[in-house]
Amino acid sequence: MSLEGVYDYVDAHADSFVEDLVKLVKQPSVSAKGEGIEECAILVEKMLQEIGFSTKIIRGEKGHPVVYGEIRSEKSDRTILFYDHYDVQPPEPLEKWMCEPFSGKIINGKVYGRGASDNKGNFVSRLKAVQTLLEVAGDVPVNIKFFVEGEEEIGSPNLEPVIKKYRDLFSADAAIWEFGGTDRRGRPNLYLGLKGVLSVELKASCASRDVHSANAPVIPNAAWRLVWALNLLKDKEENILIEGFYDNVLPPSSEEIECLENIPFEEEEFKKELGLKEFLQNKSGLKALKALLYQPTCTINGFISGYTGKGSKTVLPHEASAKLDFRLVPNQNPTEIFQKLVRHLKKHGFEDLEVIKHGSTEPTRTPINDPFVKLVAKTAEKVYGKKAVIYPTSAGSGPMHLFRNFLGYPVVSAGCSHPEANTHAPNENLKIESYIKGIKFIATLISDFAL
Amino acid sequence: MSLEGVYDYVDAHADSFVEDLVKLVKQPSVSAKGEGIEECAILVEKMLQEIGFSTKIIRGEKGHPVVYGEIRSEKSDRTILFYDHYDVQPPEPLEKWMCEPFSGKIINGKVYGRGASDNKGNFVSRLKAVQTLLEVAGDVPVNIKFFVEGEEEIGSPNLEPVIKKYRDLFSADAAIWEFGGTDRRGRPNLYLGLKGVLSVELKASCASRDVHSANAPVIPNAAWRLVWALNLLKDKEENILIEGFYDNVLPPSSEEIECLENIPFEEEEFKKELGLKEFLQNKSGLKALKALLYQPTCTINGFISGYTGKGSKTVLPHEASAKLDFRLVPNQNPTEIFQKLVRHLKKHGFEDLEVIKHGSTEPTRTPINDPFVKLVAKTAEKVYGKKAVIYPTSAGSGPMHLFRNFLGYPVVSAGCSHPEANTHAPNENLKIESYIKGIKFIATLISDFAL
Repeated sequence: MSLEGVYDYVDAHADSFVEDLVKLVKQPSVSAKGEGIEECAILVEKMLQEIGFSTKIIRGEKGHPVVYGEIRSEKSDRTILFYDHYDVQPPEPLEKWMCEPFSGKIINGKVYGRGASDNKGNFVSRLKAVQTLLEVAGDVPVNIKFFVEGEEEIGSPNLEPVIKKYRDLFSADAAIWEFGGTDRRGRPNLYLGLKGVLSVELKASCASRDVHSANAPVIPNAAWRLVWALNLLKDKEENILIEGFYDNVLPPSSEEIECLENIPFEEEEFKKELGLKEFLQNKSGLKALKALLYQPTCTINGFISGYTGKGSKTVLPHEASAKLDFRLVPNQNPTEIFQKLVRHLKKHGFEDLEVIKHGSTEPTRTPINDPFVKLVAKTAEKVYGKKAVIYPTSAGSGPMHLFRNFLGYPVVSAGCSHPEANTHAPNENLKIESYIKGIKFIATLISDFAL
Repeated sequence: MSLEGVYDYVDAHADSFVEDLVKLVKQPSVSAKGEGIEECAILVEKMLQEIGFSTKIIRGEKGHPVVYGEIRSEKSDRTILFYDHYDVQPPEPLEKWMCEPFSGKIINGKVYGRGASDNKGNFVSRLKAVQTLLEVAGDVPVNIKFFVEGEEEIGSPNLEPVIKKYRDLFSADAAIWEFGGTDRRGRPNLYLGLKGVLSVELKASCASRDVHSANAPVIPNAAWRLVWALNLLKDKEENILIEGFYDNVLPPSSEEIECLENIPFEEEEFKKELGLKEFLQNKSGLKALKALLYQPTCTINGFISGYTGKGSKTVLPHEASAKLDFRLVPNQNPTEIFQKLVRHLKKHGFEDLEVIKHGSTEPTRTPINDPFVKLVAKTAEKVYGKKAVIYPTSAGSGPMHLFRNFLGYPVVSAGCSHPEANTHAPNENLKIESYIKGIKFIATLISDFAL
């Protein structure tokens, strides 16, 4: 099988491949709200089946279904697994989108829509790569497994029992993770690990209803209680104040630091894109990069209380709620961090706050010198014509630890996104050019993995 | 003119008097949003004219119109002025209302709707009292002026130039303020002063858009900045931390303290109604009452940032906004407090926050031993059959200082509301029984004022 034939096939079918992506983007699948989940899982299964995959919809005791697909090779016993997710982030704030968030509208060579990059674009690019190999060669060179879950964006809270129950089904020699792409200079970026995440909600409740703010000297205010409680979690020098939060934090190895030094960190472009004069605490260069990848965080994702309309309203709110996420690094454990958070609030007199755990995943990394890492890097360089940039870990999160640590194989994240994709933000998009190149990259990677 | 004849007339016309109130409640007039203002001002003028008032709609350089009405007596040179407002608080949160907020629906002997008590109920009760006197006696015993403004609920930001320009028009011997009512034991409550108020909004803006929360180690978070800034304004022991905030605070006089001791503070009922085991900082009795009336405050009215929908979203918000009000006591000055707030934020490194002033009024009080106070108290006792409870000041706010200090006459607040009226909260209402009694009280007061 010649790669030239593969690439020609991809180019000849580019329009229909884009249509397939648009079809999936048009199907809402917001896991946080449970919106369109079942419909999207069925669509994903159908797309796998159409290409020739045997499929299975796996339903755990609770949570959204996992769509599994496999196609066996007659030529090889080796297996590569693709981890993807069909769920997306909520599209809000809606007013900041230039088109409907589930329109899949094509503007200036980009497909717009929530999920266009994260992760529907990557998923469909991988599917189209397999389709291309089957069409051109009549077979796949290795066994291929697709694992497409529906709760990645809410912290994959129900995945662990599924992975443990179907351990054999998900066995593989290596896995490609859901995200990745090229940077502003067209270099393919590979990621070897993920931070963990712990998503929580803090709720303060005081009186049974809102009252006139003239009562402020005697009636407790839920917004104030929540502000004071949050202030106990992180100070303005960005120190996380939860007792024992930094215990178990593993500093980067000298090998990792060396890797960091090779990462061309495009901070000026990033700052310019976000209209920032400087990064937080004026960090820059290696220091900023190291913080991004190795620093655990505590982030307010949202806060609401009382009157938030136009003008003013002299009201004293009885309820307040804040959503937070903690990004964790090896060897922090989300369960322990949750316990430390609850203890910390209690110790400082905020035991009245309700602390709700929305989801969590553990941090994990694949070693830089793993042969699979070398293989992916080599293929990426071949396809993109530029040396791959290796990130020992990403700043992002996901349930990679279940595959890397529990199922026990190397995992590398590499994909077809681009730096202006607006992931998790309004106007998420995927460049069609990047998408098509991504299909070629995955087709090549599967071929190389067979050698 | 016999008071018996007056009371009979009121009872005989109770149904039509309620209809007049419902008509006004049905007209939305939310000053914070500029909703229905012009229509409401015209309706108020029409209601005054229908009774026989000469009217004038006064438009300042900006802001909502003031509706003025007067009716002159042939028997007396004395003048009483009624200060009311036709604007109302925003009705939100809408989902907590048992009926449409502008329905004026009657349920179990109460008229429900935003403004039913505050202040449309009081305004119409006064109007109906004058109507009754005119119908029964053919004349009013003293000159009567109605001053009905449209920005009370947003801090009357444009009233001062109007008062100064029409100084002569608003001259009077005494004024009855917009609010008041009976307490849980049916005792009429009179209020001789108001706290000042300063309404502000704090806005934090960081990057040009929301980003994925994985970027938290390097991208500033507007929600955190606002939490830290708010934490600089008040600590959890309720101390307001703005430098110089408590300068000029006048403690209550021994005469006022004596008055406080006579106020039967129904704290258990209040706590029970709000589902509270205890007041803020476990205050009770005289200490709680004194705090309510004499303690200046800093209240978060609302806070919004980032994702506030269902579940979780790993987003880092670039904008955050909080609305606050400060309740001020003599001799604090809202303009000075605003300057101190801005300086305080700047001094502590939060000069990037936008500080918007939404409105302000100054604190003021009429002395307890003023003859008008004694007159109102005597009339109230006569009508309600119970000794009036005198509050040297209310915990609330309004532009009373312009009448009391600038126009220079005594001002007492006395009205027809009741303790479960849910002022500024969902399900605001007015008991029809209280409303009818209030009409009789005002008719009697006007008669007594003529003696």
